[in-house]
Amino acid sequence: MCQLMGMNCNVPTDIVFSFEGFHRRGGLTGEHADGWGIAFFEEDGWRVFLDNQPSATSQVARFVREYPIKSRNVIAHIRKATQGKVSLANTHPFRRELWGKEWIFAHNGNLINPPVCRGLRFQPIGSSDSEQAFCWLLDQISRQFSAEPSAEELFPHLKQWAGQLAASGTLNFLLGWNNILFAHCSTQLWYITRQAPFTVAHLSDADLTVDFSEVTTLNDRVAVIATQPLTDNEMWTPFGPGELLAFLNGTLIRVNE
Amino acid sequence: MCQLMGMNCNVPTDIVFSFEGFHRRGGLTGEHADGWGIAFFEEDGWRVFLDNQPSATSQVARFVREYPIKSRNVIAHIRKATQGKVSLANTHPFRRELWGKEWIFAHNGNLINPPVCRGLRFQPIGSSDSEQAFCWLLDQISRQFSAEPSAEELFPHLKQWAGQLAASGTLNFLLGWNNILFAHCSTQLWYITRQAPFTVAHLSDADLTVDFSEVTTLNDRVAVIATQPLTDNEMWTPFGPGELLAFLNGTLIRVNE
Repeated sequence: MCQLMGMNCNVPTDIVFSFEGFHRRGGLTGEHADGWGIAFFEEDGWRVFLDNQPSATSQVARFVREYPIKSRNVIAHIRKATQGKVSLANTHPFRRELWGKEWIFAHNGNLINPPVCRGLRFQPIGSSDSEQAFCWLLDQISRQFSAEPSAEELFPHLKQWAGQLAASGTLNFLLGWNNILFAHCSTQLWYITRQAPFTVAHLSDADLTVDFSEVTTLNDRVAVIATQPLTDNEMWTPFGPGELLAFLNGTLIRVNE
Repeated sequence: MCQLMGMNCNVPTDIVFSFEGFHRRGGLTGEHADGWGIAFFEEDGWRVFLDNQPSATSQVARFVREYPIKSRNVIAHIRKATQGKVSLANTHPFRRELWGKEWIFAHNGNLINPPVCRGLRFQPIGSSDSEQAFCWLLDQISRQFSAEPSAEELFPHLKQWAGQLAASGTLNFLLGWNNILFAHCSTQLWYITRQAPFTVAHLSDADLTVDFSEVTTLNDRVAVIATQPLTDNEMWTPFGPGELLAFLNGTLIRVNE
């Protein structure tokens, strides 16, 4: 199983603290050593860093840890290969353009024969079940709407398509679209929303502590989503099986009805 | 005017030497300080690094200089904004998926009202003339061929479409597709192909020398394409106006008829 991490905020925030713990799961505190990637939404575009080296020892990961990129929406993934060889084309997050926007997708789980796209609009570059599922999802979205929908309009359809995909296996995923972050759980996903009064947090994967009250303002709101809680002294909320949540500005905006 | 650089090789080669000179043109030896980007084709996928900071001082550029990524096909671009603000979405190279392959595009020049896509298949994310031209090109390619063509089949059509686009202004571009690099010149583009016997090269933009015979084997072939020659003691060949060339394995495979 891979490891997912997402961050969604109301002001551009760096992910240095969370990433410090998360990247260790790729070969150090976890066995997920088949590549990793991270995508940052910055104002009007996504910047994606990929590496097919283990994140615990990756030079690209070292760069990301040392160079605090500020972003309002982040998706990171550490891969434990199930389908598809270890290569750049099979490294998450995946990206595609639709309606002049980039859509970013990372998946944890294993899908057996997920549905394939009917048309030629979105085709996998690599050979993973994850990218095939992403292409199918985008194909559904592009066929359902003639122009870019709102998050409110998209949500119930996305929930239904996620259910269809989940019939093929395990489907924990993060889907980023501008400042919006969708998170779907089959088996394992947790989230936390941080806002004032901020407290001191301690990483699960490293003996590192941060006092968020020293690095935030009273209005900051940050949501963090992860396969397993990244800190061991805060209250994380587990997703339920089949649950889809949407985050905007560090806040939960849509939940399952 | 922006600065373009491409490299095409028969074995994975790092671009450290050429990039050492090239990146200085973004704010140091050149005035092109509105962001930069570089794309590496590695086995089965492209890895793209973008930054909207000047390349001469960019932390991402420092990383690329210090971490020698080996690739058989590279496209780099330093931006001097003409249309579209300085932002990530307007930073070259641009990328899109077509037939399960990624296509990478970087442009030097200024196009006044380039043609727009008729359909919705490829839409610009940013507001540059360059990305609009790239989307139009891919739209033409996707309409001309029902499945992925060969470079031989694509070449004459690409030449014709480049001519149509060039009617809107200046169109120097690099287009990458797997291990193939297309290069089109309106006004300014040079190339060099290096092979045994390798010699000593000296950068134009920095007092740096490399003896290629020490870092290559007898069978290596490397083509480098740039807006202006990157070295001052080698024989670079200028493109002619309207000329399109295609490189594969460090060798010129198609020229204008």
